[in-house]
Amino acid sequence: MKLPLGYRYAAAHAGIRSSEGDDVALIVPDTIAQAAAVFTRNAVQAAPVRIAKRHLKSSSGKVAAVLVNAGNANCATRTGERVALASCKAVAKALRTRSEYVVPASTGVIGVELESRRLVDIAPKLVTRLSRDAFEAAARAILTTDTRIKVASEEIRLGGGTVCIAGMTKGAGMIHPKMATTLGFVMMDAAIGPNHLRQMLSSAIDRTYCSLTVDGDMSTNDMVAVLANGASGVTPSTKDRRTLQEVMTCVMESLARQIAADGEGARKLIIVHALGFKHEDEARTVARSVANSLLVKTAIAGSDPNWGRIFAAAGYSGVDFDSSDVDIYLQEVLVCRHGLAANFDEAELKRKLDEAEVHIRIVLNGRGKSQARFFTCDLTEEYVKINASYRT
Amino acid sequence: MKLPLGYRYAAAHAGIRSSEGDDVALIVPDTIAQAAAVFTRNAVQAAPVRIAKRHLKSSSGKVAAVLVNAGNANCATRTGERVALASCKAVAKALRTRSEYVVPASTGVIGVELESRRLVDIAPKLVTRLSRDAFEAAARAILTTDTRIKVASEEIRLGGGTVCIAGMTKGAGMIHPKMATTLGFVMMDAAIGPNHLRQMLSSAIDRTYCSLTVDGDMSTNDMVAVLANGASGVTPSTKDRRTLQEVMTCVMESLARQIAADGEGARKLIIVHALGFKHEDEARTVARSVANSLLVKTAIAGSDPNWGRIFAAAGYSGVDFDSSDVDIYLQEVLVCRHGLAANFDEAELKRKLDEAEVHIRIVLNGRGKSQARFFTCDLTEEYVKINASYRT
Repeated sequence: MKLPLGYRYAAAHAGIRSSEGDDVALIVPDTIAQAAAVFTRNAVQAAPVRIAKRHLKSSSGKVAAVLVNAGNANCATRTGERVALASCKAVAKALRTRSEYVVPASTGVIGVELESRRLVDIAPKLVTRLSRDAFEAAARAILTTDTRIKVASEEIRLGGGTVCIAGMTKGAGMIHPKMATTLGFVMMDAAIGPNHLRQMLSSAIDRTYCSLTVDGDMSTNDMVAVLANGASGVTPSTKDRRTLQEVMTCVMESLARQIAADGEGARKLIIVHALGFKHEDEARTVARSVANSLLVKTAIAGSDPNWGRIFAAAGYSGVDFDSSDVDIYLQEVLVCRHGLAANFDEAELKRKLDEAEVHIRIVLNGRGKSQARFFTCDLTEEYVKINASYRT
Repeated sequence: MKLPLGYRYAAAHAGIRSSEGDDVALIVPDTIAQAAAVFTRNAVQAAPVRIAKRHLKSSSGKVAAVLVNAGNANCATRTGERVALASCKAVAKALRTRSEYVVPASTGVIGVELESRRLVDIAPKLVTRLSRDAFEAAARAILTTDTRIKVASEEIRLGGGTVCIAGMTKGAGMIHPKMATTLGFVMMDAAIGPNHLRQMLSSAIDRTYCSLTVDGDMSTNDMVAVLANGASGVTPSTKDRRTLQEVMTCVMESLARQIAADGEGARKLIIVHALGFKHEDEARTVARSVANSLLVKTAIAGSDPNWGRIFAAAGYSGVDFDSSDVDIYLQEVLVCRHGLAANFDEAELKRKLDEAEVHIRIVLNGRGKSQARFFTCDLTEEYVKINASYRT
């Protein structure tokens, strides 16, 4: 896997969660990087989210390290901010940098105090262990209920030279006792100014992480950050920035798809594609409504070509349309034409729905040319089994 | 069970659904009643919904009969409106009234043609069978995946005399191959003008049927209608109308609770109560967000006092609040105080969560005095099992 120049990674076991493996990760650019980040819009925000926002603001987006822990969300706790600040301070000390250049992120159980010393004591060890090769080890350390690591990377030749973008992410839904979270970290070695980086992230996030649903529950800890350290020596031109943004969107889309495919209890990745709308927002609203429908998700789990549920979910999305303008395709088979049942071979389509990737396409005729995609997964009995598990 | 004066009911087997029992019902006031109705806001609307709206408009809310069938939604079909109109005409002929005084309603599978003759042929038979005692038989005939009939009634002494309100309803979520639907019919024997009746329904619906969720999926056929025939001889004063409206809300709340308790696969009724908000709408938005959360619903299924999920779902409702102002109670046990974990006996609370009715209370301190309740049910593996069942 190609990795951007000028980043080192580390992972370690701090004993924050009960299991054996590593539960803390550190990402460190060789020189201070420019960063942009988006955070959960939940009114309940974990302490690390609040501290990360504050640090990025006071440092004008300069980042010397990202510290991540799994196993405890550090949310709804008495000592939340103190613990997050102490962990940043410990990392900053070991790296001989400023505390406000450290971005903290946590994922795990809510409402349980996170012991400060777990993070403070591990910080020097993490710094000692920093290595160019620990990317996947770091990607593994940030997981909670995920069944596999989620990484993606792309290399792109621009006018000034070659640039590389790599990302790691976690998230599988929420499972007790770990209130899971979506965390995403994207590193690149191009030189990008703070405003451009924010614009690029803001555009990419809509089509990737904001077009993703497992169970519709938004966590208190969600965060996606992108870092650019300039280590490639390439400062992209305006035109090249557009190319770079497309590639960054591809990397983030891959990460988002991996989250959907690894959704709790999921057996299938579902891609909902809405086309022919006036605006992209309209298309996304319809795609989201279908992707969030329990009835659609359970039907796909059962390989049931029950297009009526897709039709109904599109209908209650809030986007007003004439139902006779709607065509629906399932696995590229036309199942509903002009709002009425189409003729199709149900047994054959049922077999096609057994595949690991299911495509739902909703086409509105004669309205516009905008489209959007949404990523989700099927809803199985396993999801309920996982999430109904006893706390005690 | 007390029933309002001046109504007759009938049920019959028209062979629309595969099962044995009755699948059509007729409700007929002795004299033409005043009616008001609310319908699904889904952009995809079944033919009977469109016809019912048209008839109520052209008759200025006068109703001589309500005809309901289960087993076929008459939605997304080529012959939809023709079939709905033909069935109204057949009932009108048998009753010697006008077609536009007949309100049609359907529930069942989407996208399958409904044979006109099934309804047309049964219409005279239904009229012959009309009886004061067939209320429960009619309530049974309109069911789809429901496991039991859902009825409620209240009697109230007003200034001018005694008035009675009774309602029947259906709805359990959606189950394949029957795209289920919420239908509700409320009959009263007071004399109420069309405008007052609409106002009463509009107010009652927000606190009852619009505060109800099983799986968050809104059908193409939803409809709640209220009829007032004046058979009691009582024309309520302005003050009495307020009392009557409260009683009507109680009847409708009972019906809504019965739907939630009988949700597909549900073992528990969940009542989410949000208090201390500035406006009722704010409180309802928070209560709805919690009631719709899969993570909350699966936690309750597992009797897991996982208040962090309730806290997070309140947080992403879109209502902005300070998380340190939030108290959360589960079965009247304080689990979260000022946004932090409270001390409680988990084993004891777990036992309390095994009860058939679970109360979640979210209190915002120092914001306001408005409140709202939302009715839902737990999400079990059985729900997924039911809804993933094969179509073929």
